[in-house]
Amino acid sequence: MAESAAPGSFAARVATAVAATGPLCAGIDPSSDLLQRWGLPDHPAGLRRFGSACVEAFAGVVPVVKPQVAFFERFGSAGMVALESVIAEARSAGLLVIGDAKRGDIGTTMEAYASAWLDPDSPLAVDAVTALAYLGLGALEPLFDLAAPQGRGVIVVVRSSNPEGRTLQEARTDRGRGPAVEDQLLGAIADLNRGSRAGTVGAVVGATLEPSAFPLPELGGVILAPGVGAQGAGAAEVGALFAGCPAGSVLASASRSVLGAGPTVAGLAQAARVARDEMAAALS
Amino acid sequence: MAESAAPGSFAARVATAVAATGPLCAGIDPSSDLLQRWGLPDHPAGLRRFGSACVEAFAGVVPVVKPQVAFFERFGSAGMVALESVIAEARSAGLLVIGDAKRGDIGTTMEAYASAWLDPDSPLAVDAVTALAYLGLGALEPLFDLAAPQGRGVIVVVRSSNPEGRTLQEARTDRGRGPAVEDQLLGAIADLNRGSRAGTVGAVVGATLEPSAFPLPELGGVILAPGVGAQGAGAAEVGALFAGCPAGSVLASASRSVLGAGPTVAGLAQAARVARDEMAAALS
Repeated sequence: MAESAAPGSFAARVATAVAATGPLCAGIDPSSDLLQRWGLPDHPAGLRRFGSACVEAFAGVVPVVKPQVAFFERFGSAGMVALESVIAEARSAGLLVIGDAKRGDIGTTMEAYASAWLDPDSPLAVDAVTALAYLGLGALEPLFDLAAPQGRGVIVVVRSSNPEGRTLQEARTDRGRGPAVEDQLLGAIADLNRGSRAGTVGAVVGATLEPSAFPLPELGGVILAPGVGAQGAGAAEVGALFAGCPAGSVLASASRSVLGAGPTVAGLAQAARVARDEMAAALS
Repeated sequence: MAESAAPGSFAARVATAVAATGPLCAGIDPSSDLLQRWGLPDHPAGLRRFGSACVEAFAGVVPVVKPQVAFFERFGSAGMVALESVIAEARSAGLLVIGDAKRGDIGTTMEAYASAWLDPDSPLAVDAVTALAYLGLGALEPLFDLAAPQGRGVIVVVRSSNPEGRTLQEARTDRGRGPAVEDQLLGAIADLNRGSRAGTVGAVVGATLEPSAFPLPELGGVILAPGVGAQGAGAAEVGALFAGCPAGSVLASASRSVLGAGPTVAGLAQAARVARDEMAAALS
């Protein structure tokens, strides 16, 4: 347990970046509400300006940004043009980018989503993409296949921080005799990270929940922990939940608590610095 | 059980359309492979020509088309421009459009996806969108809220036809003591369809599976049944699985088996007609 990540893998790239700038993933969530509060138009041009301000504020301050795809998709293709621009700006600024798309499908359809988010020639190519495993972790194989040899990653939503998710995520596999869905998924992800995809597959594990049965230090991939800041979990909870996880493997994900400090670049950067330092202390 | 759908609801609109042109939902899946076989460029221009041929072939022949979003997203914003054009052409031709997006998230993010796919002002607005409930059916409320008053629909993936999905979908809720995830979801969907969202919420139920515990005729929403044709299920299986479901509530979904008859419009239309008539006989 708690071994260092496979060289060149997504987990290794995240660990290196976290060592430089701390364990925070800053969300880029241009909701209608935030655009209004920032005095930006609720329009694709507003998305671009919102994203540019975030990139300028977060570069060099945090290692990873996470644009929330839904807020761009809301404007259809014009919103996706804005997303492509934000992704390009963030990567140029040296930030790792997690595309929070939560895609999930099967077969050739899943291959197409893999192309969209992980093919280096795609305008949407990101360092890692989030995915949903309702159709089975095995159905996400095309993502893993495309991500692994490039050092890109896939972050599977396992334990969400919202209460509505508990019924499904706590259901017992093997028709009631096996582990909970979430623990079965964590175990299967750990298995993937022991093979040729070492360090490729991560998990979303909400920071506001009590620990489940699976020992998180053995995951072998990046853990993205939403629910930090505005959504509730503080440093003590984060520290307890992820105790023993390898250095640089946990990214606390903060969105509203940081973005609420906009629209100035200085305000955003300061809020990100505070959240980052708090989480660095919690996870050290 | 087996009551007729609430007037003006998505289920009622589907039932009316099925009464006119039969129970087939024709996929619009411009995969790289099919584009090549049709002699079209693997490029957004190819997507548009593929979609236009489908719309021309399917209008008046089947009631519903289902563009698979992943095959458009593969080209980023340029692919989404093509999707917007295909959706507009299909709706102009009098076809109902199901956007096969399988989106799923929580809170304001889910609201943003609802805007993207169900707001009448969105360039991506469709008659119904598919969704994933890994984060809980309750997390999809923003979709239901936006869909219901407009007679639009949400089709939740419940039982997928791929084997990798069984572990999760058959897991037992209530920590092992309750119904399977899929039956719990079907029951919760039926509850939604008894209230102010009557006829709004449908389910994807793979046609290749044995029946689960929930009595499908009581769902109160549209059932989309993939796995017909190239993927395996024939008329006998479809007829048995959906016996007793209300007239016009089941859409057999065929993609590869019909699209393989392209690229000519006549060939596509003929294949759709054959599949439609086979399913009409099975479901009568």
